[in-house]
Amino acid sequence: MPTIPADELKDLAESIYLAVGASEREASTVAELLVSSNLAGHDSHGVIRCAQYVKAVQDGYIRLGAESVVERETSATAVMNGNWGFGHVTAVDAMNLAIEKARKASVGIVTVHRCNHIGRVGAFPPLAAAADMVGLLTNNGHGGDHALAPTGAIGRILPAACMAAAFPTDRDYNVAIDLTNAVAAGGKLRVWAALGEALPDGWQVDADGNPSNDPADFLERGGALVPFGGPVAHKGSALGIALDILSGALSPAGCTEENPPEVGNALFVQAIDVEAFQPIDAFKAEIGKFIDYVKGCRKVPGVEEIFLPGERSHRTYQERLANGIPVADATWDILQGLKEEHCS
Amino acid sequence: MPTIPADELKDLAESIYLAVGASEREASTVAELLVSSNLAGHDSHGVIRCAQYVKAVQDGYIRLGAESVVERETSATAVMNGNWGFGHVTAVDAMNLAIEKARKASVGIVTVHRCNHIGRVGAFPPLAAAADMVGLLTNNGHGGDHALAPTGAIGRILPAACMAAAFPTDRDYNVAIDLTNAVAAGGKLRVWAALGEALPDGWQVDADGNPSNDPADFLERGGALVPFGGPVAHKGSALGIALDILSGALSPAGCTEENPPEVGNALFVQAIDVEAFQPIDAFKAEIGKFIDYVKGCRKVPGVEEIFLPGERSHRTYQERLANGIPVADATWDILQGLKEEHCS
Repeated sequence: MPTIPADELKDLAESIYLAVGASEREASTVAELLVSSNLAGHDSHGVIRCAQYVKAVQDGYIRLGAESVVERETSATAVMNGNWGFGHVTAVDAMNLAIEKARKASVGIVTVHRCNHIGRVGAFPPLAAAADMVGLLTNNGHGGDHALAPTGAIGRILPAACMAAAFPTDRDYNVAIDLTNAVAAGGKLRVWAALGEALPDGWQVDADGNPSNDPADFLERGGALVPFGGPVAHKGSALGIALDILSGALSPAGCTEENPPEVGNALFVQAIDVEAFQPIDAFKAEIGKFIDYVKGCRKVPGVEEIFLPGERSHRTYQERLANGIPVADATWDILQGLKEEHCS
Repeated sequence: MPTIPADELKDLAESIYLAVGASEREASTVAELLVSSNLAGHDSHGVIRCAQYVKAVQDGYIRLGAESVVERETSATAVMNGNWGFGHVTAVDAMNLAIEKARKASVGIVTVHRCNHIGRVGAFPPLAAAADMVGLLTNNGHGGDHALAPTGAIGRILPAACMAAAFPTDRDYNVAIDLTNAVAAGGKLRVWAALGEALPDGWQVDADGNPSNDPADFLERGGALVPFGGPVAHKGSALGIALDILSGALSPAGCTEENPPEVGNALFVQAIDVEAFQPIDAFKAEIGKFIDYVKGCRKVPGVEEIFLPGERSHRTYQERLANGIPVADATWDILQGLKEEHCS
């Protein structure tokens, strides 16, 4: 497996997007976000997605040159139409607008519809954290993603809904969460399928609602993801329903439905200006103190260090930035193929 | 076990609070919220708490006549000091202020410190839903509650943090979540202990981090609650850390610490005016359509009906409002004792 410097990987991805007609901003934004996912160790949302997004451009799902448009607005809020451009670009636009509004109104909320797949939801709240704000983002599948069986139901009914948040600290990383309400998302099942391995217990049910360890049940035979929570999976299920409403119903995208007109992401994006509540330095120091307290706890045998949410991926980021990103052979071959096809 | 009409139970609780010196507003607000928890089927946060709050008044933890004061404010935000009055009253004040701000600024966020135990967190977001808004509330233990072991740690480190949200619908109930990041909260362990029963697997670890089914480990011997999530309990753990920061660090209360100066609740309270995003009728109808979709799904054998979050407790509420509230003998005896002691 080759190890590629982040800059080189970004240039490669960017050149492919430019070659298929993306603007400089589109190509640069998407390439940077994909590589930042690789840097953070989330390879499932990294450059492995290049081929998928190139195909979406070719098939017309991603509309090149589309601009995000604000359809409805107050000083603290907006409804944004992404016009089916690159989802990554739309999500950056939405978070930047939320930040801009929070600068003036202390809080900014932007809901988004007609937005393509935004990739890793955890990529966007750090934009707010960098502006000394709390950043939040939730999504659903624009009403059109069917993957998970809520508690009591059989079949693919709801998306694996996601929520992400980032809090600025006095350390060199944000405390940041990025979670889906499924035990494991579909992308993870793909990874296990590619490895030819059986899934751990509790990740999946088959099309009749029975536990199954064969990822082909989800990927090919109508099986469903399972809400997280173990014996209290109704909590993960309820959380997903709340995220579906928050993300879908405050924009024209809507909640998940049986026969959706479109598939993509609907977003709820929020920035909260810390200074409206506490001096930013005191806020960051308070979280720093909390970090020390949690990390200083007695540890389970075998656990050498307790990581705050966001800390481990920050370490991976620093390590890969210094030493390069290991890229799976299959992914590297596909990237080389895309380069040959489009860039020569 | 006696079955008491809701009005009668409320009058009884109110008279006890009045007798120990609460104002009419304090007594009425707390009594109504306690009885509304019983009506909704959440008896652990109902009139069973009367003795606890009377003792807190007598011990000076709850300061009678304390007024909520706004210490810092913008058009969309406020930091509120509850001055250690009744937590229920402070939380109502905070949600009402968030609603008032959202009427003008589309969004209102109020963070709260110096607030006593607010009871059932799910009681407050419906105030926003009744005003055609989305309501959200999160809490921590004012930096001072130690109950749960985050992933990798041993001992009572963090509180069982809570989050609640309510969304208005075109039905006679809100879709509403009310969850803690623990598999089961401490109150539930008390109920099992009172019944003399062993806890289900996965609810608790002992003081050394080993699984235990004896509730005395948590209640008496330094055992800890467990984050929900089963094989992915790190998700419940991460969610709790985010809720701790959101609730604690945006007010002077702070995040959880080892040697806290005070114990209570710190709150993050938000109201979002739906009309800033979508016409309210369209929003409610969209959620109604979503409700029908989820309820119409194929069901797991033995499941007769799929309930949306908030639906089941609404049914219990209606049923108990019509037919009375079953009150456990021990609770009823305590209430009668409080009445005799204070009201005669």
